[in-house]
Amino acid sequence: MRVHLDTDIGEGFGVWGNHDESALMAQVSAANIACGFHAGDPDILRRTTALAAELGVSIGAQVSYRDLAGFGRRFIDVARPTLVNEIVYQIGALQAFARIAGTEVTYVKAHGALYNVAAEHVEQAAAIAEAVELVDPGLALLCQYDTEVWNRARERGIATIAEVFVDRGYTTEGRLVSRAHPAALVTEVEEAARRALTMVTERRVRAVDGGMVAVAPDDATALALCVHSDTPGALEMATATAEVLRANGFAPAPIG
Amino acid sequence: MRVHLDTDIGEGFGVWGNHDESALMAQVSAANIACGFHAGDPDILRRTTALAAELGVSIGAQVSYRDLAGFGRRFIDVARPTLVNEIVYQIGALQAFARIAGTEVTYVKAHGALYNVAAEHVEQAAAIAEAVELVDPGLALLCQYDTEVWNRARERGIATIAEVFVDRGYTTEGRLVSRAHPAALVTEVEEAARRALTMVTERRVRAVDGGMVAVAPDDATALALCVHSDTPGALEMATATAEVLRANGFAPAPIG
Amino acid sequence: MRVHLDTDIGEGFGVWGNHDESALMAQVSAANIACGFHAGDPDILRRTTALAAELGVSIGAQVSYRDLAGFGRRFIDVARPTLVNEIVYQIGALQAFARIAGTEVTYVKAHGALYNVAAEHVEQAAAIAEAVELVDPGLALLCQYDTEVWNRARERGIATIAEVFVDRGYTTEGRLVSRAHPAALVTEVEEAARRALTMVTERRVRAVDGGMVAVAPDDATALALCVHSDTPGALEMATATAEVLRANGFAPAPIG
Amino acid sequence: MRVHLDTDIGEGFGVWGNHDESALMAQVSAANIACGFHAGDPDILRRTTALAAELGVSIGAQVSYRDLAGFGRRFIDVARPTLVNEIVYQIGALQAFARIAGTEVTYVKAHGALYNVAAEHVEQAAAIAEAVELVDPGLALLCQYDTEVWNRARERGIATIAEVFVDRGYTTEGRLVSRAHPAALVTEVEEAARRALTMVTERRVRAVDGGMVAVAPDDATALALCVHSDTPGALEMATATAEVLRANGFAPAPIG
Repeated sequence: MRVHLDTDIGEGFGVWGNHDESALMAQVSAANIACGFHAGDPDILRRTTALAAELGVSIGAQVSYRDLAGFGRRFIDVARPTLVNEIVYQIGALQAFARIAGTEVTYVKAHGALYNVAAEHVEQAAAIAEAVELVDPGLALLCQYDTEVWNRARERGIATIAEVFVDRGYTTEGRLVSRAHPAALVTEVEEAARRALTMVTERRVRAVDGGMVAVAPDDATALALCVHSDTPGALEMATATAEVLRANGFAPAPIG
Repeated sequence: MRVHLDTDIGEGFGVWGNHDESALMAQVSAANIACGFHAGDPDILRRTTALAAELGVSIGAQVSYRDLAGFGRRFIDVARPTLVNEIVYQIGALQAFARIAGTEVTYVKAHGALYNVAAEHVEQAAAIAEAVELVDPGLALLCQYDTEVWNRARERGIATIAEVFVDRGYTTEGRLVSRAHPAALVTEVEEAARRALTMVTERRVRAVDGGMVAVAPDDATALALCVHSDTPGALEMATATAEVLRANGFAPAPIG
Repeated sequence: MRVHLDTDIGEGFGVWGNHDESALMAQVSAANIACGFHAGDPDILRRTTALAAELGVSIGAQVSYRDLAGFGRRFIDVARPTLVNEIVYQIGALQAFARIAGTEVTYVKAHGALYNVAAEHVEQAAAIAEAVELVDPGLALLCQYDTEVWNRARERGIATIAEVFVDRGYTTEGRLVSRAHPAALVTEVEEAARRALTMVTERRVRAVDGGMVAVAPDDATALALCVHSDTPGALEMATATAEVLRANGFAPAPIG
Repeated sequence: MRVHLDTDIGEGFGVWGNHDESALMAQVSAANIACGFHAGDPDILRRTTALAAELGVSIGAQVSYRDLAGFGRRFIDVARPTLVNEIVYQIGALQAFARIAGTEVTYVKAHGALYNVAAEHVEQAAAIAEAVELVDPGLALLCQYDTEVWNRARERGIATIAEVFVDRGYTTEGRLVSRAHPAALVTEVEEAARRALTMVTERRVRAVDGGMVAVAPDDATALALCVHSDTPGALEMATATAEVLRANGFAPAPIG
């Protein structure tokens, strides 16, 4: 089992949210870099890809609806061909910066509402898979296990990596519980690290109602553990999770 | 002497200016495709790159200030590092579409105000040259001969191709006369075609005051003749120019 | 019965779609002016409000989702408080131009996807009604009869004016048939004018399946007939409709 | 002498920079509220105008070039008519929110590069004055004394209020020294408060070379002291300045 520790990063714009993320970057093995549609301007893309390359962290295209005002958190009923092209555009832009940094984009992850919607929405899930295939069928796709987009990507022969959230509560269907739910966030660092280890060793997580739910297929050879960069104590959580993983022989590895 | 016939194309956005440009594309050998900063959304990039590839027309990144509202026609005093990264971003996005179309971006051309400003502005001219070098030093740069950006690009070993405008009047300094000038536009098709041939054979053009002015170095091995797609009768002018060139042994060739 | 003839207008942006609309403006009595979120930049707002004022045409705020790239034609799942504020912003901006033109905004109409969604969507319909009430409860709201937004607005005491489309086919539920339907568009000018007159005198229209459907309440004292400015032959249709209405004693009147 | 204490506020966008500013708002008497072109989305406008109204703070329209990506800090060579209309648009939008909050916009201030450029640029200075006059000649204009925009506004009979910066160093020409200069920022709170008092009582400030320079006309009846909200210790500086002013009989007053 190959384990990745990933985080959303480079999510500022212009004067906003444009802070030093090197401490967080140093803890993860995969950086989901915003590509300009929900966040991330060209200066931030340049600096973030350079930082990832310097630290040996994999670069993923964190693609989104075109929605700076809403940070990509609102569903947009964009037509499939347009969504395909919007995703291609974002990946292409990031690829240029990755090459300048001497490395390359190795995977794609949808952001925000698009991430959640693609778990169920037939057309938009297909759009993501189609865009990845068009740009480079060798790119991996980070997404939740057994979702619409997971299945559509696998049909096309795209490598999918099950992504799990060490800091979020799960429903018995394997989906994230709403942020309005009291158990939505796992903020206790040790607990998050323990959950991470269980996810890796068992491919399952305890749901908010107490049962266990699968977060990856039985034959999974890779798992990506996501720490949200905007969770309180994200850096501590990433650090603790990385340590527990390393201590148990699952040192976080780059993707691809 | 290798002659290219180029045009600005794919310059709509969303519902606007999104019309069939295949007749114009069929006449030129190089397409300066808008990359989304002054015009050109992902759907348009997709369709325009596919059309260029299908017709064997070279694809160039027509890069601009970030200015949809002003169509890139207003000078923006953007700092050099930011301009470098904005240009990288645009080229990268277009490259993804070019690859999908089975071809590649072979050159870069600045659009609108950036094109004009780069003829004199030390920092912004350097930004263009730096961005091209960063993305791929094998990309050619279309620009006016002996301008600031021409010289900065050559210093870095970037291939420059002198671009001339068959439909615009020239000053004795080799610059375009202001659009407010009565001789700003050459709208008579035969005259434009004749001018084009003279530019190719003599590397000079008659300025509005009657003198001849150099538009390319004496040892130039390539020249790009631009027909503006928004000039009245652009299609007729492109067609006539292409015919005159072919009839005289200078069939328009792709770039790169 | 007070009859209004309205059209969507001022829907360009920057260099795009920015053409002379004075002939169309001269035929209508109410101008639904784009406010900058799906179309309409400040220069266009200035010119279009001035033109409306000069011709004695009422000025309405055509408010939209924030979506220039999609021309406001895609549903965006924007939260109610944000939608309220986005609508307030748009109306406020237009009001400044109306005052400069010596007149005022007298009504509001949702554009594109927001118009259609507000017929059913509880939260977004409420947002429109709330925004109108906040800005000025004396503003009228143009919308389809007996829709969610119609009912929410009336509850708040906002004057609603039933809007009907002389150039569109109707379902038996009183909604517009999809543009994919063969009977979606009424392009024959005489037929459209006849339909308009029937709508005014009977408050009903023949649906695509042959039955008659109510388009306004029995006690309606006003009706707005919309001619889409992007329908083929929009100007001819507006002209013919206005003539038929005048000939029958229903000269199109301003709103408010 | 009527003294105002003003600050730039409401300068976030979407998820960014959208924090509680009530402590700062409680110290000032005039709020320069971003209107959406360099910062400030409709939700922020709503909340910031409500907060200002609640605390009895005057609302000013902080108008900018259209430049979210650059936070309005880069000169844009926008044509005068377009700049006029862009300013009208911004003021109008803010006015709607001010009215909802039960108050009104009483003044205008240019932001960032537009503020600085308008001190010298004939066309853009005129555009600001023209826009204010068009919207409401009763609005005051906050700007630096004896600049191009100051003079153009006064010619039109617009009330100008000289704005001084308690936290910035001055040249002998009465302009702000570049942020690159070691004396650009006054960060010592007591010193800033002392400077503020001198500015009020003497209408002059000590320049970086030691001489005194006028910051308001001799017959000035009003002066606005600006505390930048993004200066380190802005809240402490605003608090200390307000206290010193009150202790000396110059309690900060609203504008208009």
